[in-house]
Amino acid sequence: MQRSLSLSQTDGKTEGTKNLNSLLPSEKALVPFVSVDNMMKLVHHIGLEAMLRGLAEYIEADFKRWELFDKTPRVASHSAEGVIELMPTSDGEVYGFKYVNGHPKNAKEGLQTVTAFGLLADVGNGYPVLLSEMTMLTALRTAATSAMVAKHLAPKGAHTMAMIGNGAQSEFQSLAMKAICGLKTVRLYDIDRAATEKAAQNLAGMGLNVVPCDSAEESMESAQIITTCTADKQCATILTDNMVGSGVHINAIGGDCPGKTELASAILHRSDIFVEYPEQTRIEGEIQQLAPDHPVTELWQVVNGTAQGRRDDRQITLFDSVGFAIEDFSALRFVRDRIGDTDFHIDLDLLADPDDPRDLFGMLQRSHANGTGLRLT
Amino acid sequence: MQRSLSLSQTDGKTEGTKNLNSLLPSEKALVPFVSVDNMMKLVHHIGLEAMLRGLAEYIEADFKRWELFDKTPRVASHSAEGVIELMPTSDGEVYGFKYVNGHPKNAKEGLQTVTAFGLLADVGNGYPVLLSEMTMLTALRTAATSAMVAKHLAPKGAHTMAMIGNGAQSEFQSLAMKAICGLKTVRLYDIDRAATEKAAQNLAGMGLNVVPCDSAEESMESAQIITTCTADKQCATILTDNMVGSGVHINAIGGDCPGKTELASAILHRSDIFVEYPEQTRIEGEIQQLAPDHPVTELWQVVNGTAQGRRDDRQITLFDSVGFAIEDFSALRFVRDRIGDTDFHIDLDLLADPDDPRDLFGMLQRSHANGTGLRLT
Repeated sequence: MQRSLSLSQTDGKTEGTKNLNSLLPSEKALVPFVSVDNMMKLVHHIGLEAMLRGLAEYIEADFKRWELFDKTPRVASHSAEGVIELMPTSDGEVYGFKYVNGHPKNAKEGLQTVTAFGLLADVGNGYPVLLSEMTMLTALRTAATSAMVAKHLAPKGAHTMAMIGNGAQSEFQSLAMKAICGLKTVRLYDIDRAATEKAAQNLAGMGLNVVPCDSAEESMESAQIITTCTADKQCATILTDNMVGSGVHINAIGGDCPGKTELASAILHRSDIFVEYPEQTRIEGEIQQLAPDHPVTELWQVVNGTAQGRRDDRQITLFDSVGFAIEDFSALRFVRDRIGDTDFHIDLDLLADPDDPRDLFGMLQRSHANGTGLRLT
Repeated sequence: MQRSLSLSQTDGKTEGTKNLNSLLPSEKALVPFVSVDNMMKLVHHIGLEAMLRGLAEYIEADFKRWELFDKTPRVASHSAEGVIELMPTSDGEVYGFKYVNGHPKNAKEGLQTVTAFGLLADVGNGYPVLLSEMTMLTALRTAATSAMVAKHLAPKGAHTMAMIGNGAQSEFQSLAMKAICGLKTVRLYDIDRAATEKAAQNLAGMGLNVVPCDSAEESMESAQIITTCTADKQCATILTDNMVGSGVHINAIGGDCPGKTELASAILHRSDIFVEYPEQTRIEGEIQQLAPDHPVTELWQVVNGTAQGRRDDRQITLFDSVGFAIEDFSALRFVRDRIGDTDFHIDLDLLADPDDPRDLFGMLQRSHANGTGLRLT
């Protein structure tokens, strides 16, 4: 399966140089790589809203078969200024992982708070089959996940969303809710007015009614969906209890590592809480404020119909989103399936692949004999 | 520090196209990548034995400051046919991890048993600073580690090594022992005679006296160092108790995952056992055959002088090698330091880096406005 991804370029290269076969990396040694530039081209090729819908479909499909995945909380390396994480998972046939950092202070230095890349590999032989940027793809999959979940949990006919926190994720959230849930209006608020202006400008002409607001309270007027997405590493209270009425769906994105939350705990006690993977969310999500046995519902059970989602119009549903490895796996699967017939990837010579697998040393020696003539020892 | 690695190519590109600055990936978005081909060129540029000595120096330096590293047993995903592992570590300033698989049945299918790649990142901002192939580099660092350890543990004046198992690692082991410990003679044995012939041919003319042998016993005649490196996933007994005399150093490479060992347990009871990281070795090494509290010495303490290495001429020392993340970290540091003034790397557009870090969406939109004219939604 993975072989087809690199066939075109590799075959082209090999055709004209049969006699150099043993010097060129073989097809097996090459791994398709999707750069940031090619990811952006892929998004425009597919269409942004179509891609968000496609990602949501892949994520939903993997939530339906949640039980067969190897699951583990991400492997985090914390430092004073941030965290670097590895997020592996496997469905038994394909293995995937994402490298992702979170450094809130980066923004002040002109750097991304979150950067990421990811990989898929064949479980059967351990060979990587796709390497991809995931800074852009994580933004897309996070928005697609939120919208897929809102489709299951938000009040029927929800048309207006309060978008609190107008950073890098806000436009993706807004458009995913439009593409997947039929959102008509987004009401923007950020403590930094410039961020709201940036988001409003980016969303102009995209088919949404965009309303910049002067306070969180104002942004929540007539909203059925409330999305919070702020980046502070500290515990913060973006929403207080009296701000949240009944019958809403809260999509809480920003609280996603230990000591980082956005909601007053009183809101949590009034809500029915839905999570991706409890073992991880209890450490990283809003529910780190609650008792370790506070009841939560696992989203995969709502998606496959074995647990109830929204019960009635008065209920507050809360998606305590922290991001889980399976969503990245789904996103990488989507990219792998879509790049096959495009030019939006290059092949990287990532794997040593000698003609005789026991002869790595001979491969090294031959590369010298046919190389630049530099000394051997 | 990491910035200097990608300066040349990026600056060159940017110089002539000032007005396109916002469309090209910025210097921060680019990560130096060392392909298999470039790794082989780097080895020949430095010289194979010089590189093995350089790697051993970096590994020894990191063993000396072992205590300050973040250490964790590798994160393994096991399947029926093999394992895929992530091996992260950090010294507080630099973070590194390796992706590595182990699939013994691959060799029969013309694939590498072990393939690997690795990454270094800046702990301060989480940005990757080096991506590198590590199939070749793992072979080099494993050999360099064995020889660095043998320098501390083997009998003084050791000149002959039995090399049992003549697969992909055997020539690297032999040359590292020559370069770092002054080995004169290597005696080769493998159950597959073709493997021995391959290794003998590869080592011809490399400055070692090479003796192909017909049995493991024969290979061990007059040897002060015994290296076992076989690839079976099952428990095997490559060495039985009566084969091993006193006063030798055993370098046991092949036993490196649960259920995979090479030595009869009686040998372990006659040996003083030295390990990299007990928490990992007790699961994966030869000592999985022993009681969980069987005494072992941590190598970093021998290297920094706080624990005794070889005590006398009659002692059997055993390096129960499984490979640890810090050795990969050292090897990646070495590569990072050496590629700076060479052409043996390319810059990958791996990280999205918008002018305004909050404006990932705007970066995506602008890429379209200046791109191929494909539809947006």
